[in-house]
Amino acid sequence: MPVNLKSPAPQDLLPVRGVKLGFAEAHIRKPNRKDLLVMQFAPDSKVAGVFTQNRFCAAPVVLCKEHLAAGAGIVGLVVNTGNANAGTGEDGMLRARRTCEALAGLLGCADNQVLPFSTGVIMEPLPVDRVVAGLPACIANLKEDNWLNAAEAIMTTDIVAKGASRQLTLGGKPVTVTGIAKGSGMIHPNMATMLGYIATDAAVSQGVLETMIRHAVNRSFNCITVDGDTSTNDSLVLIATGQNGGAELADTSSADYLALRDAVTEVAAQLAQAIVRDGEGATKFMTIRIQGGRDEAESRKIGYAIAHSPLIKTAFFASDPNLGRILAAIGYAGVGDLDVNLIRLHLGDVLVAENGGRAASYQEADGQRVMKEPEITVRVELGRGAAESTVWTCDFSYDYVKINADYRT
Amino acid sequence: MPVNLKSPAPQDLLPVRGVKLGFAEAHIRKPNRKDLLVMQFAPDSKVAGVFTQNRFCAAPVVLCKEHLAAGAGIVGLVVNTGNANAGTGEDGMLRARRTCEALAGLLGCADNQVLPFSTGVIMEPLPVDRVVAGLPACIANLKEDNWLNAAEAIMTTDIVAKGASRQLTLGGKPVTVTGIAKGSGMIHPNMATMLGYIATDAAVSQGVLETMIRHAVNRSFNCITVDGDTSTNDSLVLIATGQNGGAELADTSSADYLALRDAVTEVAAQLAQAIVRDGEGATKFMTIRIQGGRDEAESRKIGYAIAHSPLIKTAFFASDPNLGRILAAIGYAGVGDLDVNLIRLHLGDVLVAENGGRAASYQEADGQRVMKEPEITVRVELGRGAAESTVWTCDFSYDYVKINADYRT
Repeated sequence: MPVNLKSPAPQDLLPVRGVKLGFAEAHIRKPNRKDLLVMQFAPDSKVAGVFTQNRFCAAPVVLCKEHLAAGAGIVGLVVNTGNANAGTGEDGMLRARRTCEALAGLLGCADNQVLPFSTGVIMEPLPVDRVVAGLPACIANLKEDNWLNAAEAIMTTDIVAKGASRQLTLGGKPVTVTGIAKGSGMIHPNMATMLGYIATDAAVSQGVLETMIRHAVNRSFNCITVDGDTSTNDSLVLIATGQNGGAELADTSSADYLALRDAVTEVAAQLAQAIVRDGEGATKFMTIRIQGGRDEAESRKIGYAIAHSPLIKTAFFASDPNLGRILAAIGYAGVGDLDVNLIRLHLGDVLVAENGGRAASYQEADGQRVMKEPEITVRVELGRGAAESTVWTCDFSYDYVKINADYRT
Repeated sequence: MPVNLKSPAPQDLLPVRGVKLGFAEAHIRKPNRKDLLVMQFAPDSKVAGVFTQNRFCAAPVVLCKEHLAAGAGIVGLVVNTGNANAGTGEDGMLRARRTCEALAGLLGCADNQVLPFSTGVIMEPLPVDRVVAGLPACIANLKEDNWLNAAEAIMTTDIVAKGASRQLTLGGKPVTVTGIAKGSGMIHPNMATMLGYIATDAAVSQGVLETMIRHAVNRSFNCITVDGDTSTNDSLVLIATGQNGGAELADTSSADYLALRDAVTEVAAQLAQAIVRDGEGATKFMTIRIQGGRDEAESRKIGYAIAHSPLIKTAFFASDPNLGRILAAIGYAGVGDLDVNLIRLHLGDVLVAENGGRAASYQEADGQRVMKEPEITVRVELGRGAAESTVWTCDFSYDYVKINADYRT
């Protein structure tokens, strides 16, 4: 059951001028569900992407990078669920290329002007005939107010569709930012995410858009983990259509840039947190905040050690303040010269440990009270410097095991 | 349910001349169970230890290192279960020292001639009065054929007691090697293990003993993982009493050294595998063998990425050959220049993947057949060099979650 996460209502996802979305039930893996999405962008839209660092990255990821690097201008993209087209070798590349060819034919552009995405089971051949057969239906219902349908079309083990919008005004012109994402297992993005698509009708130069997507991803999708497994298919795409009539943002020091960057980052963070709230089997949403680190890298290392520990995640599932497990994770995170006597551990508003052990003021009943809440913050002060980092994660329940044991059945 | 692991019968654990063991029910945490162990060594025994790298290491670990470094000669040791005396700060150190003081008084030696060990819940005060009160009963039943009782006395969430013996002849004299260990959760030893004690009646110089324990631990306890959590209390101790009447081994190139080293390593590996077979909730025993690596470090990295993946561990629990998850783990293990097209993945005797994708010969039914077995070997050929490594692990079941959610109740 997702933690404090409601599916966005249709009116919550605002259309973005210059972005049309169309979907289909293509029976990629299962019948009677939306499983194919096409997005079409206005001419001269700028598109930037970040992708998984997994060496076994999927064929569509390889092709996305190739097409973005070609610089011919991206006109549209296609996403199928039910099959990841990963671990599929040369044959997988051919199938991903055939998907692009078919979509390019329908959109009247070159093959390298479209981006392909796949998500689902790994190491099985993509049923490319079904993908191609489903594309005309997607094209037939392309429209600007299809964001919620699009969010639903890219779901796999997700229980709830994930989307967010923001509005702001730049240079007197209204700007909209809308994004959707999917993902709930195999979540430990490394420089990227599961699938996420964020679009704005502001005009942004290609260089500025690249800077903006890095900023946003490092404060959103790169701060989450469900199970520590980095997917083969993680991808985030940021689209700027320039259809709001405003001037192009080409300077990363302008106030307008900062305003748009922050709106994009807010949408990205909301989507990233939505993925954790819908983590497979999740019953608790945990914010792990590490403060006082010497640098951000060591803060993140400790944050992820806590967020990945099955022992800690199961204790949170049980609402059991077995908090020594958190000390153990801090201790094995790999920060060699850590002085444990300087560390202060807080659970919500409760000081749990200091001076290398349990705080004198700590009462089990206080820990118990916080552990029962659905949203819990673990805060660790390292006392070594001024660097901070935050990781969002969820607990580890019977249902995580059940979902992943039964995944293919 | 432990995987193919039977508790040793009393006659399977051979006495070691010069080592006496005594136990007690000291009610450290729960009544009516053996939870306190004392071992006493013949004069001039040599003792070597390796310990957890966790920065939040337990008070007794700190004290063990201090006492071993003092070089006064170790006369005995004490182990309590039910409380780890970790994350307990300065007060924990005082309690560990008081334990040593009490045992030294009973054994008639200096405080720094005994080693203390604790295992159990973290960040709770050690009930040192109960430990001290239980020591006389341990002393009263010290004897050489108490190894099985000792193995039982150090169990926590272990279902099965763990012990192993070997006999060999060195220089015409019979030599015995016997060891015991405990552990089934928070298992990802880093340069050491959960608690393990291995003794031999051979005579071994201190320097050679240190070399021998490193060799053994790197081929046994440092090759296992249950949940990737490195404990605060991991410790392995190797004792050589010299009571068999043979000459002292003081040269690591002698044939006798190699024979004893291999016997010790065999006992250590059997104990380490027993810990995995008794992994919390384990239903499958998995051997992850990585071959053709450029060096051992990268082979181990990939082995542990597979062994730690909750997605892979739950798929093995379900006997579901969802083997793309193994490719994903190989891909995110952090070997930057891995060429996935060179990799060959085998499940038991079945070739699953090559050339970046599923092998043409692979049939789901073959994968299914292997997945149903209780002992499964995953073999990965990297095609980069000649380095190899092996990791032993278990699957991830409902019972792992249950055991760790309910640990303190």
